[in-house]
Amino acid sequence: MAFTEFRPLDEKSLVDYIKFVPALFSKLGNNLDGLTIKEVGDGNLNFVYIVAGPSGSFVIKQALPYIRCIGESWPMTKERAYFEALALKEQGHWSPDHVPEVYHFDRTMSLIGMRYLEPPHIILRKGLIAGIEYPLLAEHISDYMAKTLFHTSLLYHSTTDHKHAVAEFCGNLELCRLTEQVVFSDPYKVSQYNRWTTPYLDHDAEAVREDNALKVEIGELKSKFIERAQALIHGDLHTGSVMVTLESTQVIDPEFAFYGPIGFDVGAFIGNLILAYFSQDGHADGGNDRKSYKEWILRTIADTWNLFQKKFIALWDEHKDGSGEAYLPAIYNNSEVQHLVQKRYVEDLFHDTLGFGAAKMIRRVVGVAHVEDFESISDAKKRASCERRALDMAKLLLKERKKFHAIDQIVTAMQQVA
Amino acid sequence: MAFTEFRPLDEKSLVDYIKFVPALFSKLGNNLDGLTIKEVGDGNLNFVYIVAGPSGSFVIKQALPYIRCIGESWPMTKERAYFEALALKEQGHWSPDHVPEVYHFDRTMSLIGMRYLEPPHIILRKGLIAGIEYPLLAEHISDYMAKTLFHTSLLYHSTTDHKHAVAEFCGNLELCRLTEQVVFSDPYKVSQYNRWTTPYLDHDAEAVREDNALKVEIGELKSKFIERAQALIHGDLHTGSVMVTLESTQVIDPEFAFYGPIGFDVGAFIGNLILAYFSQDGHADGGNDRKSYKEWILRTIADTWNLFQKKFIALWDEHKDGSGEAYLPAIYNNSEVQHLVQKRYVEDLFHDTLGFGAAKMIRRVVGVAHVEDFESISDAKKRASCERRALDMAKLLLKERKKFHAIDQIVTAMQQVA
Ligand SMILES: Nc1ncnc2c1ncn2[C@@H]1O[C@H](COP(=O)(O)OP(=O)(O)O)[C@@H](O)[C@H]1O
Ligand SMILES: Nc1ncnc2c1ncn2[C@@H]1O[C@H](COP(=O)(O)OP(=O)(O)O)[C@@H](O)[C@H]1O
Ligand SMILES: [Mg+2]
Ligand SMILES: [Mg+2]
Ligand SMILES: [Mg+2]
Ligand SMILES: [Mg+2]
Ligand SMILES: [Mg+2]
Repeated sequence: MAFTEFRPLDEKSLVDYIKFVPALFSKLGNNLDGLTIKEVGDGNLNFVYIVAGPSGSFVIKQALPYIRCIGESWPMTKERAYFEALALKEQGHWSPDHVPEVYHFDRTMSLIGMRYLEPPHIILRKGLIAGIEYPLLAEHISDYMAKTLFHTSLLYHSTTDHKHAVAEFCGNLELCRLTEQVVFSDPYKVSQYNRWTTPYLDHDAEAVREDNALKVEIGELKSKFIERAQALIHGDLHTGSVMVTLESTQVIDPEFAFYGPIGFDVGAFIGNLILAYFSQDGHADGGNDRKSYKEWILRTIADTWNLFQKKFIALWDEHKDGSGEAYLPAIYNNSEVQHLVQKRYVEDLFHDTLGFGAAKMIRRVVGVAHVEDFESISDAKKRASCERRALDMAKLLLKERKKFHAIDQIVTAMQQVA
Repeated sequence: MAFTEFRPLDEKSLVDYIKFVPALFSKLGNNLDGLTIKEVGDGNLNFVYIVAGPSGSFVIKQALPYIRCIGESWPMTKERAYFEALALKEQGHWSPDHVPEVYHFDRTMSLIGMRYLEPPHIILRKGLIAGIEYPLLAEHISDYMAKTLFHTSLLYHSTTDHKHAVAEFCGNLELCRLTEQVVFSDPYKVSQYNRWTTPYLDHDAEAVREDNALKVEIGELKSKFIERAQALIHGDLHTGSVMVTLESTQVIDPEFAFYGPIGFDVGAFIGNLILAYFSQDGHADGGNDRKSYKEWILRTIADTWNLFQKKFIALWDEHKDGSGEAYLPAIYNNSEVQHLVQKRYVEDLFHDTLGFGAAKMIRRVVGVAHVEDFESISDAKKRASCERRALDMAKLLLKERKKFHAIDQIVTAMQQVA
């Protein structure tokens, strides 16, 4: 059976497909005996199959031309698989330790074959809900972010390379539009897709829709999200796009990748750690009050930012006489000016990070897609109380972000709220 | 003779070309009798021919694969003609009164046929040097800028349209790179191309190359120039790209067009008016002290900005329920929030305008390409004194731009310098 046209696969037809693709078949030792195939997609958009045999394994991810969790009523280009594969390869090139290897990509089938992140890898969000500390998380994720974002920015790119890449990823506009809608628009207006913990947060949701000062900020960030081609960003870097063990951190699912503001990635990750923090009281019980776990989350937030900025700047210093065309060495030719431009760059990035992070938090409380951190708190009143603190924190960050100058101030502000 | 491959034309071969192109030949009434062809390109990059016969006329502009004023030693893609033609058509669509009509475009030949802007049209810069007041200039240029920039921004575009257009104009990267070099880089470093009125400005040129605070600002603007796809900008909107009579204002030469920051266009125009202002003392003589002309320039600067922002905002109000996806009407649904976002947008635009305008001024004093406003002051010492005041003003604007909030403050600052 040939696969010359797109069709959705299932556990059965996937076997035929694998036989047809040497790059995949060979991973199984060209042998289908004892093969197991299991669909495990718990994400919102796509189908993910774990394929495992006695001599090898891989994961197959296929995009269908609609959004899985909504259904065919919300069409979405399956070309997103093309951009996901492109991004996985680029990010894997710069951060091979933290990105699963791509074995195979089939544009016609909107299908990616990649390394199976075998157990005990779990989705980070689930680990955060379970209260598991990941001692290397900040180190790893800061490494991934610094490397992938630095090397695709003008600090490393020639402007020629940059514009070619920007133009290519303009093609991923349908996914950008989805973010524009669900992150930057829907939470601030009446939308059929919005939901929140009712009736407790009815007033809070309404307040978001009537907060003019908030709308000014989200409007500025929305335009920046669309206009500012600063680096190849993952575009969906929440804690559900990271798989972890105690020793390993792997970033999956960059189907929203495009050239956008760096702070959108850093903010997504940190914003989701802040959500995890505010959800902890909902998971506390007699056996575990989650107090020390909350401290660990706070430390991880601070470490993530501090390590990220340190590594990003170290890459900048390392490559300051290199290919990047934003700051030419003949101009930025003394350590004082080098220090000043880096300070300016990082300050701007910090404010973007807070703003975008806050935007990602707000939409998880009053928008279409919620997070398991809160959803798994079954007592609605308790859940609402956690969500409200997260929401209030996010509103503060979005409106007042330019008044903050260090991550410690964010940690302090969080401790004051809860 | 066919023209199936690129070749540079001259007055003679152009006749053959015209015969071959009905869109042009018909403009002459399909008749070559009494035809005159004259090369008039006084610009830096291309060849421009005025073609006039008894029953019609047009201009032919051809790009050669190098920069005319430097020669074949500085290669430059002739594909710039494609982007110039695209931009002329788009800008002409939105502002037909202020853009010459395109009659013909030949990509193979990198050749544009367009309306001949007949005498008494002259290049605005020459009119400013001659001390001629153009009572409609601010009205017209603000109209052109407001219309072309608004309608190609996210205030009018869907994000889909925007990203398609952004991707297309990423192709004009060689011209963008030229701007990056000559505006944002060369003046701030030692470069074989830089020149200035020596020996008078030797110290001033050196001071620019050693001013760390200035380098921080120009670095930020350079990245913004490359990264921020805010609207389809002309990209070279100095007073040498505008042809005028007392009643007419026509914007030519958008070969540098791409999706960039709006303030780069507005700043280019206003920055060049500021240069014209500071050059006036060099043109004063017994018969005309240029005092009242300087007042007119100041008024024109203020009017240009004020009318531009008024018209831009009026277009925004008019289209607030339209196709633009940056500020959705369901969110920006009351006049207070509408006012707040517009205020934020315009404030940001004002600061970009000052910064980019200042950058364009600096490069005209210490960079590769100077302006006739100063070059035509034959007394080098007098010229240097005019240039120094312009340079000092520009440095102030670049460094302190965020402290200014209205164009009147710029006018006042200019009056204090000279
Ligand atoms: N390479 C992989 N190894 C192991 N599990 C994976 C891998 N990729 C995806 N998964 C599992 O599939 C789920 C959905 O994958 P994801 O790429 O996030 O899809 P979606 O785009 O639909 O969100 C993940 O949450 C994870 O549990
Ligand atoms: N449409 C036109 N009508 C009349 N003169 C024109 C026209 N276009 C260009 N010119 C003349 O040719 C000169 C160079 O044109 P321009 O488009 O600025 O070329 P360049 O890209 O080389 O700067 C202008 O300064 C002007 O004098
Ligand atoms: Mg996912
Ligand atoms: Mg690259
Ligand atoms: Mg996904
Ligand atoms: Mg010109
Ligand atoms: Mg030109």
